[in-house]
Amino acid sequence: MINKLVSEIQKKQAPIVVGLDPMLKFVPEHIKNKAFKEYGANLKGASEAILEFNKKIVDAVYDLVPAVKPQIAMYEQFGVEGVIAFKKTVDYCKEKGLVVIGDIKRGDIGSTSEAYAVGHLSSQDIGGTLYEGFGEDFATVNPYLGSDGIKPFIDVCRKEKKGIFILVKTSNPSSGEFQDRLIDGKPLYEHVAEKVNAWGEDLMGDSYSYVGAVVGATYPEMGAALRKVMPKAYILVPGYGAQGGKGSDLKAFFNEDGLGAIVNSSRGIIAAYKQEQYASFTEEGFADASRQAVLDMKADLNSIF
Amino acid sequence: MINKLVSEIQKKQAPIVVGLDPMLKFVPEHIKNKAFKEYGANLKGASEAILEFNKKIVDAVYDLVPAVKPQIAMYEQFGVEGVIAFKKTVDYCKEKGLVVIGDIKRGDIGSTSEAYAVGHLSSQDIGGTLYEGFGEDFATVNPYLGSDGIKPFIDVCRKEKKGIFILVKTSNPSSGEFQDRLIDGKPLYEHVAEKVNAWGEDLMGDSYSYVGAVVGATYPEMGAALRKVMPKAYILVPGYGAQGGKGSDLKAFFNEDGLGAIVNSSRGIIAAYKQEQYASFTEEGFADASRQAVLDMKADLNSIF
Repeated sequence: MINKLVSEIQKKQAPIVVGLDPMLKFVPEHIKNKAFKEYGANLKGASEAILEFNKKIVDAVYDLVPAVKPQIAMYEQFGVEGVIAFKKTVDYCKEKGLVVIGDIKRGDIGSTSEAYAVGHLSSQDIGGTLYEGFGEDFATVNPYLGSDGIKPFIDVCRKEKKGIFILVKTSNPSSGEFQDRLIDGKPLYEHVAEKVNAWGEDLMGDSYSYVGAVVGATYPEMGAALRKVMPKAYILVPGYGAQGGKGSDLKAFFNEDGLGAIVNSSRGIIAAYKQEQYASFTEEGFADASRQAVLDMKADLNSIF
Repeated sequence: MINKLVSEIQKKQAPIVVGLDPMLKFVPEHIKNKAFKEYGANLKGASEAILEFNKKIVDAVYDLVPAVKPQIAMYEQFGVEGVIAFKKTVDYCKEKGLVVIGDIKRGDIGSTSEAYAVGHLSSQDIGGTLYEGFGEDFATVNPYLGSDGIKPFIDVCRKEKKGIFILVKTSNPSSGEFQDRLIDGKPLYEHVAEKVNAWGEDLMGDSYSYVGAVVGATYPEMGAALRKVMPKAYILVPGYGAQGGKGSDLKAFFNEDGLGAIVNSSRGIIAAYKQEQYASFTEEGFADASRQAVLDMKADLNSIF
C-alpha cells in the first residue's frame, strides 16, 4: 500500500491528503435539512448528513488527490450511527480509488493492539471465512506503550501489505509538554523517531517503509531533523492551513526525491466555503470550493520544489 | 461519578473492575453456535455471541463488583457490528447499576479530543435535543499529546460529573521503553503523574478527583511511588491475573483509607472456566466460574489489608 500511495502521489503530482473530519457545523443547511427530514434530527440524521457531505467532497476532489484521512473521533461523536458513517466513508473512498488513512491513533498492550490492527487493517476469521472490519489502508498509531503496542500492527501490515503512521511529534500547541522533554540529551520525539526507523527497516516497500510517522506542519525545524532520523519513513504532516502550517515551511519534511511526505488539510479543504477566500462559491457550491482549495494547496506545495 | 464509584467499592467491599474484553475463543460453543445459527457465522453473529457472553457474565457478577471495563478494541475488531455490541454492553451494564469504564485510550489534538469526549462521555446537541453517543461513565485517555489533548475530556467531565483515567505507567512488558526514560532525573511516567495530579486538583469529588490514572499491577514499586505523587487520583490497575499481577503486590497502590485503587481483571474472570482451577464448572457453567473467580479475587485483595 505504501507503493500505491507513492505512485498515486507521483501520478497526481499532489502530496496531499484530505482530512475528512466533518463537524455538523461544516455541513451546508440543504444537506443537513434533507438528512434530518429523511432520518430525523438525531444521531442517525446527523451521521447521514456528514456521510452525504463527505461523498460530495470526495466526488469533487478524488481525481486530484491520492488519499483521504477520515478522523474517526468526528464519527464516534455520533455514537454507533457515526461509526456506521465512518465505515461507509471508508468504503466510498476506496471505491473512488483513494488510499484511506484511518486517523484512529490507537495503541494498547499487545493483545489489544492486535484487535485494533485486525479490526482496522485486516480481517476477522469467523468459521474459516474472512470478514473485514473497517478496512482502511493505513492507520495512525500512538507509541506511548512501546514496542509491544506497535508490533501487532507491524505484523498485520506485513501480512496485508498495509501501513501505519506512528505519532512522533504532533501538531498541537502543547505537544512539547512530554514529546519535547530531553532524554539523554535528545527530545522524546527523536527517541520515538529512532524506533520508527528501526521498526520500519525490515518492512520496506520499493523505496519507503510500510511504517511511517506523524510530524506536525507546525514544527518545521523538528520536521527537518526528523526527516534525517527516519529517511525511509513516509511522514504524514497534519497542521497545514487551519492549524497554521504553510507550504513554504514544509520543504524540510520532504526528501530530495521530492517524496517522503504527505500533507493533510482538513477544515481548510472540507469547510473551504466558509472562508472569505472561497465565499463566492456559496454554501450550495461547497464541494467546488473544496476542489478549488485543493488546487490552491497543490500549487502552494508544488511551489516549494 | 467518582463518588458513586467509591461508594460502590465500599458497599460491595470489592475494589474490582471486571474487564469485558471478549475474544471469540473465550465464548462457549453453545453461545457461539446459537448466535451463528440466528445471525450467520459472520461479523454480526460473532458480535451477538460476545454480547450474549457478556450479558451472562454480568448477570453472574453484577452484585459483587462496582464496575466493568469493556475494552473497545475487542469490539472494533468486529467492525461496525462489534461497535454495536460495545454500545449494547455499556447499556446493559448501566441497567444493572454498574459503573462503566470505557477502555478506549483515546487522545488527540484539542478539537478531536473534544469529539471523543462528547461521543463517549457526553451528548451531542442536534437541533436543540441532546443525544448520547456511547454513554460510558469513565474513559481511559492517552497523554502523549499533552494538556490540550486532555483538557477537552476534563471540561466534559466537569459538565457531566464523569471521569477519566490517564495512562501513566502501563502494564505491558515494553511500557518502560518510553515511559521509564529519565527526564531531569525522573521517569517520564512520573512527569505524567504530576500532570495528572495537577489536572485533577480542581475537579474533586468528595475525597477523590474525577481525574484518575492507569498504573499496571505488574509494576508494584512504581505503583508505590506514584500513589504518593497523585494522592487524590483513583488508580485503575490493570494487569492482575493473566498478565502476572498478584494481590500481595498491590497494597502499595492503595491509600491508607483502603481506597484509591481499583484492580482490573479481564481474562482471569471472563475466561475463568478455561483455567484448570475452575474447570469443574465446565463450559456450560462459564458464568458461575466467572463468579467464583470474582469471589476469589475479592478474597485475595481483601487479604492485603
